[in-house]
Amino acid sequence: MTNLPKTNTRVLLKSRPTGIPQAEHFEIAEADMPALEPGHFIVKNEFLSVEPAMRGWVNAAANYSDPVPLGGVMRSFAAGTVVASRHAGYAEGDKVMGMLGWQQYAVSDGTGIRRKVLEHDLPLSLSLGVLGINGVTAYFALTEIGEPRPGDTVVVSTAAGSVGSAAGQIAKLAGCRTVGITGGAAKLKMCLEDFGYDAAVDYKAADFQQALAAASPKGVDVYYDNTSGAISDAVVARINKFARIVICGTASVASWDPWPSGPRMERHLLNKSARMQGFLVWDYEHRYEEAVARLAAWVREGKLRYREEIIDGMAAAPDAIASLYRGENLGKRLIRL
Amino acid sequence: MTNLPKTNTRVLLKSRPTGIPQAEHFEIAEADMPALEPGHFIVKNEFLSVEPAMRGWVNAAANYSDPVPLGGVMRSFAAGTVVASRHAGYAEGDKVMGMLGWQQYAVSDGTGIRRKVLEHDLPLSLSLGVLGINGVTAYFALTEIGEPRPGDTVVVSTAAGSVGSAAGQIAKLAGCRTVGITGGAAKLKMCLEDFGYDAAVDYKAADFQQALAAASPKGVDVYYDNTSGAISDAVVARINKFARIVICGTASVASWDPWPSGPRMERHLLNKSARMQGFLVWDYEHRYEEAVARLAAWVREGKLRYREEIIDGMAAAPDAIASLYRGENLGKRLIRL
Repeated sequence: MTNLPKTNTRVLLKSRPTGIPQAEHFEIAEADMPALEPGHFIVKNEFLSVEPAMRGWVNAAANYSDPVPLGGVMRSFAAGTVVASRHAGYAEGDKVMGMLGWQQYAVSDGTGIRRKVLEHDLPLSLSLGVLGINGVTAYFALTEIGEPRPGDTVVVSTAAGSVGSAAGQIAKLAGCRTVGITGGAAKLKMCLEDFGYDAAVDYKAADFQQALAAASPKGVDVYYDNTSGAISDAVVARINKFARIVICGTASVASWDPWPSGPRMERHLLNKSARMQGFLVWDYEHRYEEAVARLAAWVREGKLRYREEIIDGMAAAPDAIASLYRGENLGKRLIRL
Repeated sequence: MTNLPKTNTRVLLKSRPTGIPQAEHFEIAEADMPALEPGHFIVKNEFLSVEPAMRGWVNAAANYSDPVPLGGVMRSFAAGTVVASRHAGYAEGDKVMGMLGWQQYAVSDGTGIRRKVLEHDLPLSLSLGVLGINGVTAYFALTEIGEPRPGDTVVVSTAAGSVGSAAGQIAKLAGCRTVGITGGAAKLKMCLEDFGYDAAVDYKAADFQQALAAASPKGVDVYYDNTSGAISDAVVARINKFARIVICGTASVASWDPWPSGPRMERHLLNKSARMQGFLVWDYEHRYEEAVARLAAWVREGKLRYREEIIDGMAAAPDAIASLYRGENLGKRLIRL
């Protein structure tokens, strides 16, 4: 058994934001290292995940999970190594990924562990990105809800992000024309050069709507939506008959309190016999390993590329979500401990 | 060959409405009875259909079909009897239903004929209602898009209408709890007494939202939407996990020019992994007879009830669509010639 320190550094939710959580809503605090009870094990976290959905996890409004309690460790995915175990299913040295929270060490009885990471030939950090929730989300949301068919035009918003970039590449592997929507020259370049989009459009540009039209001359068959808002309204106005709109995130909406308005969707959907459907990755929990196996094979074959942006040290955590929403990241945002 | 009159009375589109077509947008005019060319036949219309979708057919805005040209015969379904034929596929005496228009006599080469009406044991008028587009719409939209499962709560808007009443009854036959939304005491009574809804809610009542909640204590699994607007917003706020929202019509929206706004749907759909999908009956054209056979069997068994409101004479046609939108009808609106 590894010698463990006496204290554990953790990031706690200090106050509840109504919109995007900022650094001030968190505090870093030490706690005693808990004793290891029978049936439990301790994971030393190596990578902490930062993702847009975390905004929802701290929000008081009804959502798809209960909010993180005030004073509680910030909920997050993390990946690390089992360093002590009194649990029959987990041995020292096992690599695991799960809802381990923003903390140095996590004690678990197995609850919240998503999986043992078995791709030892690939970096552990990938289990939080392209081989983690992000990649698995892109895989099932695109294939099961988007149902891409060869020749389809697939438009992806937040196209350079960790979910979007995987969705765009999987659509390309499915034989589609892919159009990425992102913001700024650096991300446009990433879309075209790193992620193989056929076209990339800057939503911040004055000619966004014309550029989108030029990039999708045959209309839009699948819209993989991570943003909602004005970006989506522009795409939805271009959908084709039988289009599928995958609602995977609403990154462009700063707050749902008060609930924002937008152009009514009903007539678009009716005129085009089109579908708009929400996607939650947990609905596909029972098929998680199927997706990871597929994604890992593509990564090994060089067909699925990813980009990580790793920041070092727990001190970066409190501002990390706000930073995501400021659009500053150029890859899957991770905190390395 | 029946003796035909020298002239044919027709209802023409005189000017193009932006919203709901009113009597003033039409005119009744006589034309010469056309000569019967080889390969053609003449139908004497007995019933003309009046339905909400006709608003879209005269509207200049992009829609799922080209608009009726100014000066042209108003497009509509009608049912009648072949009275003269030089077409090998149609004989004098055949009952037919199709896009025959608001006119006494229609000449056809077969184009626009939906089907020969073969249910000679049932009234011909049913081919325009419960055994026509309305019933077929309800059947496919509910079963294929709504996917009702036993025990589901199914909410239907314009619940007493010809589409809604069929949808509600088919949902009940599928083992669901059915909640009808309609306006006014007479239609509430129809919902409960004629169409067997488990509950009926008046959208015009001050306590609409509370009444809807009381009528759907377990939330809403399927929403069969014929209205859009505030009615839909109230229902969508109550959807359950994996809910299916069928967009079949937008009767409560007076105009889509300018395009109306409403609460954004994305977060509802995302939180509930729910689906919203537009339905157009023509997408199921190849399965039309399958639906009619099913519906006719239910009608014969007394399991599927309908209500017609028949008005006599062509003079009633110009105001008939506006009257529908005023909510004055208590059954499938037909004009009998």
